Amino acid sequence: MTAIARGLEGIVVSETRLSDVDGEQGHLIIGGVPVEELAPHATFEEVLHLLWHDRFPAADERAALAAALVAQRDLPPETVALVRAAAARRVPAMDALRMGAATLSALGPTTGGLQDASGLVARFPAIVATYWRLRQGQEPVAPRADLGHAANYLYMLSGVVPHPDVVRALETYLNTVVDHGMNASTFTARVIASTRSDMVSAIVGAVGALKGPLHGGAPGPALDMVFEIQARVARDGGTMADAAERWLRDAVARGDRIMGFGHRVYKVRDPRADVLNTAATRLFERAGDLQLYRDARCVEDVVLRVLRELKPSRHLETNVEFYTALVLHGIGLDVELFTPTFAVGRVGGWTAHVLEQAAEDRLIRPSSVYVGECGRHTPPPVVPHPPACEGGAPAAEAVPA
Amino acid sequence: MTAIARGLEGIVVSETRLSDVDGEQGHLIIGGVPVEELAPHATFEEVLHLLWHDRFPAADERAALAAALVAQRDLPPETVALVRAAAARRVPAMDALRMGAATLSALGPTTGGLQDASGLVARFPAIVATYWRLRQGQEPVAPRADLGHAANYLYMLSGVVPHPDVVRALETYLNTVVDHGMNASTFTARVIASTRSDMVSAIVGAVGALKGPLHGGAPGPALDMVFEIQARVARDGGTMADAAERWLRDAVARGDRIMGFGHRVYKVRDPRADVLNTAATRLFERAGDLQLYRDARCVEDVVLRVLRELKPSRHLETNVEFYTALVLHGIGLDVELFTPTFAVGRVGGWTAHVLEQAAEDRLIRPSSVYVGECGRHTPPPVVPHPPACEGGAPAAEAVPA
Repeated sequence: MTAIARGLEGIVVSETRLSDVDGEQGHLIIGGVPVEELAPHATFEEVLHLLWHDRFPAADERAALAAALVAQRDLPPETVALVRAAAARRVPAMDALRMGAATLSALGPTTGGLQDASGLVARFPAIVATYWRLRQGQEPVAPRADLGHAANYLYMLSGVVPHPDVVRALETYLNTVVDHGMNASTFTARVIASTRSDMVSAIVGAVGALKGPLHGGAPGPALDMVFEIQARVARDGGTMADAAERWLRDAVARGDRIMGFGHRVYKVRDPRADVLNTAATRLFERAGDLQLYRDARCVEDVVLRVLRELKPSRHLETNVEFYTALVLHGIGLDVELFTPTFAVGRVGGWTAHVLEQAAEDRLIRPSSVYVGECGRHTPPPVVPHPPACEGGAPAAEAVPA
Repeated sequence: MTAIARGLEGIVVSETRLSDVDGEQGHLIIGGVPVEELAPHATFEEVLHLLWHDRFPAADERAALAAALVAQRDLPPETVALVRAAAARRVPAMDALRMGAATLSALGPTTGGLQDASGLVARFPAIVATYWRLRQGQEPVAPRADLGHAANYLYMLSGVVPHPDVVRALETYLNTVVDHGMNASTFTARVIASTRSDMVSAIVGAVGALKGPLHGGAPGPALDMVFEIQARVARDGGTMADAAERWLRDAVARGDRIMGFGHRVYKVRDPRADVLNTAATRLFERAGDLQLYRDARCVEDVVLRVLRELKPSRHLETNVEFYTALVLHGIGLDVELFTPTFAVGRVGGWTAHVLEQAAEDRLIRPSSVYVGECGRHTPPPVVPHPPACEGGAPAAEAVPA
């Protein structure tokens, strides 16, 4: 009997210097810095340098990296044409991002390594924003060289230079999700890179994996739950807490999965949830509208209490998706942009993992065990085979002595 | 000390009923049939049915599957436009295939499952042939509904209805490579599918992995070696065997990898090499030109003898790439089409694995172990932070009580 490592759970496939996920203690270290310190204070460009070069940039390196990103924000005309077609057909945003990203080697032979990494990171926001503008019936907005990476993303989405507080909130979000150990999309990128394939192929594969609902990069439904409960209160009256409890008990009774709670790795509270909670509080306080924030916190309290009662063995805690939804909504992003914006952050980690895997240079190739039929035979041909294929016992004939 | 399963070598990740690779004995079973029996006798459509449905088709099922493939051969105009742009920029064929495949969900919401599988299998040859015609400065050829899958591929490449012997050789090749256990591209497709992402995303990831030289889907260099040795004989005289021996000893002395020999899984002769050897013999006999075939066999004999002498511990045997090169060259395909044609066959296996993974429905997510720095601190900001971010000890402030 062969032991099967289903889902590869508990199998350590690689060493990494990029991030350390301690699910038992609820700690996350990114490039040597706890996420609670790094995310709200560093720029996204600093975090990219930290991941790609294993240290924070000196002043000239900071300027060089910023300039490299600015210089690579334009999209090739083929990419814009394809994204335009995708928007016209109302292809979902993540499919449009995957298609657009897949074209990026159309730019010509890539120089490999860091140049490819910065090119992909620079162009992800441009693809998402171009798609989104076209989906709304608006023309794309050209990037602005005087804006940083996060600010330029918001500018390309809206055509308006964003307030620094909003940029800070987005940057905190991008830093928070930039890397997270050997998750399924990062692992996908490393498997592809392990064949010595190119950076674009690896990143396109990762985008495809991130699309999947089991990946955990889908924060929309967590916020939808809050909106639904708000709508019930508006319709039927009563308190948020009571409405949340009824909504939740119905959902659990139906066997629905409650989005925004629980994580395969974290057995305690996801540290990213706290970072994003703080960012969300600041964002909503600044806007002077704390209603959604308070309602969401109320729903969170009810969900945690009821889940502890109904599923005491599961240790379900608020995960990163719940606060991601609040932060991104507070920034003004549509729910459909949540997962693409996650990708805008995570592509920093993906590219760093591809570089790390390339340095390791070892093919990732597990095995499978066969559980199918044995001893089947090919049916006789429906039309006569041509002369070269006639005669003889097939199996014996095909095997030379 | 955490044990690291580097490359996941020896780790069994899944059960499969699709193929059984026995590297110790040199056996390959595809859908319950030894490759030696299946590949030279079944149609590619029969093999697809075997993989997708776990049995050979009845007459009506055979007709339905053939009709489904014929009905899905046309490419969306966006795909053709992108492939045209890729050909104009002389993007490598595998990049063009990856880009073209990535657009296929632009067709609109996919119905999922088998419909997506047959759509991808039907359109892979169309993408490759459309790209190749455009690369040669020719207009694409429309598919022909009266031709089977393999024949239509050759027709779309050349504009000429191929001889049945040539179709048989291609079909034998496609069947031989259609599936091969948990190789890196198949594994990539399964990792992506394990997140409940879509079929197109999974297959695009697999194409990206197949591109990598360590995957083993690159048969061109094996034939290039034979051509180089032929050219030396033509220039300097002497026998093929002597020229091959000199060429090989020089290559080994330089530390070059000898393409077409050795395989991570097979410790004995790759059974697919024998199937393709038989197919190549027939093809070259039919064409009345056995010179290249004889020269290739001569080079093979020399390589095996010299490798046994120089690397006695390695058990290097002729692998599938060596005979792939001979068969595909005999069919008349350019070396640049070898890996895309491998993909035209393997996409049958990839789609079947995605369906199998979807039925298993378990996220594939291994772990990594952190070996980076600890205790780094975020540098002070270069520009003053906005008010919302000022004051307080960062880490402590970000973590609520």
